Amino acid sequence: MGNFQIRTDLALEARECITEPEGELRGVRVEEYYRDEQEVQVTKVFIESKNGAKAMGKPIGTYVTMEAPAMVEPDEDYHREISECMAEELLQLLPDDKAERSVLVVGLGNREVTADALGPQVVDNLFITRHVVREYGKAAYNCSKMNLVSSIEPGVMAKTGMETAEIVTGVVRETKPDALIVVDALAARSTKRLNRTIQISNTGIHPGSGVGNHRVALTEETLGIPVIAIGVPTVVDAATIVGDALERLLEGDEEFDSIKYMGQHRSAFAELNNMYMTGKDIDAVIKRVSFTVSEGINIAMEKGME
Amino acid sequence: MGNFQIRTDLALEARECITEPEGELRGVRVEEYYRDEQEVQVTKVFIESKNGAKAMGKPIGTYVTMEAPAMVEPDEDYHREISECMAEELLQLLPDDKAERSVLVVGLGNREVTADALGPQVVDNLFITRHVVREYGKAAYNCSKMNLVSSIEPGVMAKTGMETAEIVTGVVRETKPDALIVVDALAARSTKRLNRTIQISNTGIHPGSGVGNHRVALTEETLGIPVIAIGVPTVVDAATIVGDALERLLEGDEEFDSIKYMGQHRSAFAELNNMYMTGKDIDAVIKRVSFTVSEGINIAMEKGME
Amino acid sequence: MGNFQIRTDLALEARECITEPEGELRGVRVEEYYRDEQEVQVTKVFIESKNGAKAMGKPIGTYVTMEAPAMVEPDEDYHREISECMAEELLQLLPDDKAERSVLVVGLGNREVTADALGPQVVDNLFITRHVVREYGKAAYNCSKMNLVSSIEPGVMAKTGMETAEIVTGVVRETKPDALIVVDALAARSTKRLNRTIQISNTGIHPGSGVGNHRVALTEETLGIPVIAIGVPTVVDAATIVGDALERLLEGDEEFDSIKYMGQHRSAFAELNNMYMTGKDIDAVIKRVSFTVSEGINIAMEKGME
Amino acid sequence: MGNFQIRTDLALEARECITEPEGELRGVRVEEYYRDEQEVQVTKVFIESKNGAKAMGKPIGTYVTMEAPAMVEPDEDYHREISECMAEELLQLLPDDKAERSVLVVGLGNREVTADALGPQVVDNLFITRHVVREYGKAAYNCSKMNLVSSIEPGVMAKTGMETAEIVTGVVRETKPDALIVVDALAARSTKRLNRTIQISNTGIHPGSGVGNHRVALTEETLGIPVIAIGVPTVVDAATIVGDALERLLEGDEEFDSIKYMGQHRSAFAELNNMYMTGKDIDAVIKRVSFTVSEGINIAMEKGME
Repeated sequence: MGNFQIRTDLALEARECITEPEGELRGVRVEEYYRDEQEVQVTKVFIESKNGAKAMGKPIGTYVTMEAPAMVEPDEDYHREISECMAEELLQLLPDDKAERSVLVVGLGNREVTADALGPQVVDNLFITRHVVREYGKAAYNCSKMNLVSSIEPGVMAKTGMETAEIVTGVVRETKPDALIVVDALAARSTKRLNRTIQISNTGIHPGSGVGNHRVALTEETLGIPVIAIGVPTVVDAATIVGDALERLLEGDEEFDSIKYMGQHRSAFAELNNMYMTGKDIDAVIKRVSFTVSEGINIAMEKGME
Repeated sequence: MGNFQIRTDLALEARECITEPEGELRGVRVEEYYRDEQEVQVTKVFIESKNGAKAMGKPIGTYVTMEAPAMVEPDEDYHREISECMAEELLQLLPDDKAERSVLVVGLGNREVTADALGPQVVDNLFITRHVVREYGKAAYNCSKMNLVSSIEPGVMAKTGMETAEIVTGVVRETKPDALIVVDALAARSTKRLNRTIQISNTGIHPGSGVGNHRVALTEETLGIPVIAIGVPTVVDAATIVGDALERLLEGDEEFDSIKYMGQHRSAFAELNNMYMTGKDIDAVIKRVSFTVSEGINIAMEKGME
Repeated sequence: MGNFQIRTDLALEARECITEPEGELRGVRVEEYYRDEQEVQVTKVFIESKNGAKAMGKPIGTYVTMEAPAMVEPDEDYHREISECMAEELLQLLPDDKAERSVLVVGLGNREVTADALGPQVVDNLFITRHVVREYGKAAYNCSKMNLVSSIEPGVMAKTGMETAEIVTGVVRETKPDALIVVDALAARSTKRLNRTIQISNTGIHPGSGVGNHRVALTEETLGIPVIAIGVPTVVDAATIVGDALERLLEGDEEFDSIKYMGQHRSAFAELNNMYMTGKDIDAVIKRVSFTVSEGINIAMEKGME
Repeated sequence: MGNFQIRTDLALEARECITEPEGELRGVRVEEYYRDEQEVQVTKVFIESKNGAKAMGKPIGTYVTMEAPAMVEPDEDYHREISECMAEELLQLLPDDKAERSVLVVGLGNREVTADALGPQVVDNLFITRHVVREYGKAAYNCSKMNLVSSIEPGVMAKTGMETAEIVTGVVRETKPDALIVVDALAARSTKRLNRTIQISNTGIHPGSGVGNHRVALTEETLGIPVIAIGVPTVVDAATIVGDALERLLEGDEEFDSIKYMGQHRSAFAELNNMYMTGKDIDAVIKRVSFTVSEGINIAMEKGME
C-alpha cells in the first residue's frame, strides 16, 4: 500500500516485464511447450539463483503457467482435459518420495468477495479421504495404496483475528501432512490472462501475493513440508492498469515512467490503492474455474492409488 | 459495450462534467444543504426540460444525492441517523395522495457478485407487512393506518431467462402496489463517492444504468405507478477511471479528449469493456451500507402509521 | 395446524393407506414396472374420478413415482441414468401439441432451510435458454427447433409479503410460457422413501402440500397452462411418525386410532405441530438430489431439439 | 447409532429424568433463581462427584441453564437484555486470574444444515479484536486493558477430513489463548425448550454431544486451558420424541420402558436413527438466536476493558 508498483503474481508476466532477451537473464530459465490436444500453452519459469530472484521479484523455485483460453467458457464437464493437464503438472512438482501421501489442501481467500473466492470454492469440491481411511482403512476404497486428502478454509483475518499462517501452522503441526497445496486467487498485470491461466509453483505463498495480499509466508521454510501453490488470476490491480494506460499514451517517450509519475502525483492517484478491477461475470467464471482446479487436484490425488 | 464513454449513474457527477457554471445550464436546477447533525451533504438536481435531460444524459425528474462519508465506517447501530435522513428524503419523493400505501420494494442486482449485491441484501432486511395485514388486518400491528410492504429479488437474466422488467411488470400487475421502490448498486465516476453516497430519484430505472447494466426500463411510464429508485455507487467503470487518468496526465493539453483517444485505440483498451473497479473490503462495506438503506426504507414505511 | 392427520404428499403412500385391495378402489388405477438398467421402480397412480380423488385425498390426475434407492448415494455423474429415466417420464406428462415449447420452471421452497431447499437448488442448475433464443434466435444453439427454458425462485411469503401463487401468476401472464414445471420438497409418511423417490404429476401444486405447506394452488385451472409438479420427499411430518409408532405399539388392538388419540390428547402432542423430521446429512443429500432432478429437466428440454 | 437412548444435551433435563427428589441425589446440587427484569429463569446444576456424574451421564462441572421464552420471538434489538444476562453468567464461569484475556471462540457445527448452524452464525457476528491489538496496540480502542478475541469455524469432518478437535488443538497450540469458548447447537428432550434456552457450562465439549454428535472431546484436560461451552437446543432426537410419546400412551403401566421396547423392536424403529426433529421456521429462529448469543459474548468480552 502507499506506493505504486507494477503488480503481478504471475512469474510469466514478471519475466515479460524484464527487457533482457530470452536466455540472457542470468539465473532465470524458461521452457515452453504447447499441448495440442488440450489446447494449453505451458510455460515453465525456473528461478535458479538469488540474482534471478532479485531481478524477478519472486523467490527461487519453479513456476508452471498453463494458459488455457477455453477455461473461461462454459463446458459440460468443466474442461476435464484442462484438469488432467493440471494434474500432471502438479504431480511433477510434488515430491515423489513416498508410496502414499497425506496432503492438506488450503483454500485461501474470502468467500464473501467473489473475485477472492477461488480458494474456498476449490476446497468445496475436493474429494476428501483422510477421515475415512483413518477410520476404516484403505479397504474402504478398495485400494492397497491410497493418498489421504484433508482440507481447510482458514478464512480472513478480519473475521478470525488470526493470521492465516497461524491457523495453517497449527493444523499442520497437529495433523502432520506430508505436503501442503495452497490455492489462491491472484492478481495479473494483463486482463488477457484473467481466469484463463493457472500457475502452479513449488515456492509456497509469500507476503504481498494474492487478491487478499497475504502478510505472512506459507513456505517449506516456515512449515517444514513442501508447499505447492496453485493460483488463478482473477483481478488486475487498479494502479497497474492505469499505469499501463499512461505508458501506452506516451509510448514514444522512453523517459516516461508511469510508476514514478503516479508516485509523484500520489494524491491524485491515491484512490487507486486497495482497488482492483474484475469482470462483470466473475461469479459464473469463478464457479467454473474452481471446479476445473478442484478436479485437477482430485485427479492428481487419485493417481498412484492402486 | 463497444464504445467508451464517461459512465456515471449519479446525476450529481453528470452535472459536474458539464462546464457551464451553476445556474447557466438551462433546464437543470441544483439545490444544496448540509444536515449538520447527521453530517450529510444533500444535493438535489432537478432536470426540468428535455434540453436539460439531453445535456445531462438523464431523464427529466428529481435526483437527491446524500453524501454521507460516515456510511462506509463500522457503526454499532449502522448509522441510524443516516437512515432517518434518507427516510425523510424518500418520503418527499413518494406521492402523498393516499392515507395508506402498498409499496413493492425490488432488490435489483446479483447476489453472487459482491459489488452488485446491494439490492438483494437490502431486501433481506426489510420489515415485510403485506401478508400479515391482508390476513389479520391492521390490528395485527395495533395500527389504524398501516403501509403494506412487499418485496421481490428478481435475479439476473442469465439465471432466469427473463428480463427483470418482465418479472417486475407481472408482479405489479398481479399484486397492484401503489408505488415501487427499486434498489440497485450504481457506477460512479469518482472513487471518492463509492459507498458514501445514496441517490434517490423519482425517475425509475433506465437502460444502461446499474452495475449490471439494465436493458429495459422500470418507470412510471412502463408500469403505471410511481417508481422511486434508490442507489449506492459501489463500482467505478474501468474505462472511466483510465480515461480520467489519461486526462490528468495531459492536463495542460486542452485538445486531448481521452474518450476519443481510447476509441481510436480501441483494440489497446478493449480489455476495459465489461470490467469494473471496486474496493478490497467490498463485502463488509456492502453488508453495512445495505443495512443503512433498508433501515431507511423501514423508517419511511413506518411513518404515517397510527 | 391444530389437528393431526396422516400426512403424505406421495400418491403412492396415500394408496398404501387405503385397505381396499388392488383393483377394488374405484376410480384409482395403479400401474407398475421396474426399469432394470437404471434400477428404478416406477409406480403410476391414476386418479380417474371424483370418488377416487376423495378416497385418496388428492386431485384427479396422474402421479408417477420413481423409487431409486441409489439416488441418495454419492456418484460421480450424479446418477445420470436416473435423470434420463426422469426425463422420459416427464416428457410423457408434458402435452405434446407444440413443435417447440416455452417452459417456466418454478423452484418452490426456502433456500435457507436445508430440507426445503430442493426447488431453489434445482433451479440453480438448469440450462436457461429463453433469453438467448429471444435475442439471437435458435441459431445461437445451432438448432432449428429449440425449447425455451426460463426459471424463477419466488421465495417465501415471510420475505416477500406475497403468496407464491401471486408472483407466479404475474410472471406467467407477462411471459406466457406454454407450460409450467414446479419443483418442491415434499413430506413422506415413511422415512424409507426420503430422498430416494421422485414424484411427477400433472396436477400442479395444491394447498397444504410441500415442506412449506403451500396456501394457494398452482394448477392448470388457476394458471391456464399445464402445470407439472416434480417433488422429492425430504421430511416426515412429526405427528405422522409419532402416530405410526403408537399404532405399532398397539398393533393387535384394532380399535386404536392414533390420530384420534392424539387429537383427544392434543395438549400433550401440541409440540408436534409445525415440526418435521429429517436426516443429519440432509445438506449433502439435497445437493446431490437436486442435481439429479435438474439434469432430468435439462435432458427433457434438450430432447426434441434439432 | 444402533441403540436407542434418551438423548439430551441439557443438564437441566438430565436432572429431570432422575426420579430422586431434589436434594437427594448425591453429588448433584441445583440452584435456581428468576431474573424478573429480563424474564429469564436461571437454573444451575452443579455436578460435584463421580457418583453424580455417573447418575447424570454428564461430567463433573457447573451447568447454567437460562430459560428465556422471549428469545424465540422477533425483537428489534435481538433481546439485548438476554444477551446481558448471558454475559454475566458467562463471566462467572470464566476464570478471573488475568487482567486481560485472550479468548478463542470456536463455532462448531455445519453452516449448511440450518438446525446445526448456530456455531458458525454466532462466530459471524463477534467483535474480533486480536489482530488489531497485536498490530496497533490497545490504543487502537482507547483502552489500557483490553481482551483479545479471535474466532474459528472449523467445519465438519466430511469436508475437512479432520476431527474438529485436531483443528482446534492445532490453533490453540499456535495462538495460545487463555481460554476457549465453544458454541454449538444442542439436542433437547423436550420441544418446549427448543430455541428458548441457553446452556453455559465449564466442562467443554464431550463425545456424542451436539446436533452433529462430536466424536472427540474439547476440554481443559485435552487442551490445557479452560473450555466454556455455550449451547442452544435446536433439535429433538427422533427416537427420544417417539419414545416419550409411547410412554405417554401407556402412562399407567409402570412396567413399560419405551427405550427397552424400541430396542427389542429395533428394525421397526431403525429409521429413527440419525434423524432429528426441528421446527419449520428454524432459519429465522437460528438467525435471531445466534445474534443474541454473539452479543452475549461481545458484552462479556467488552467488560473489564478500561
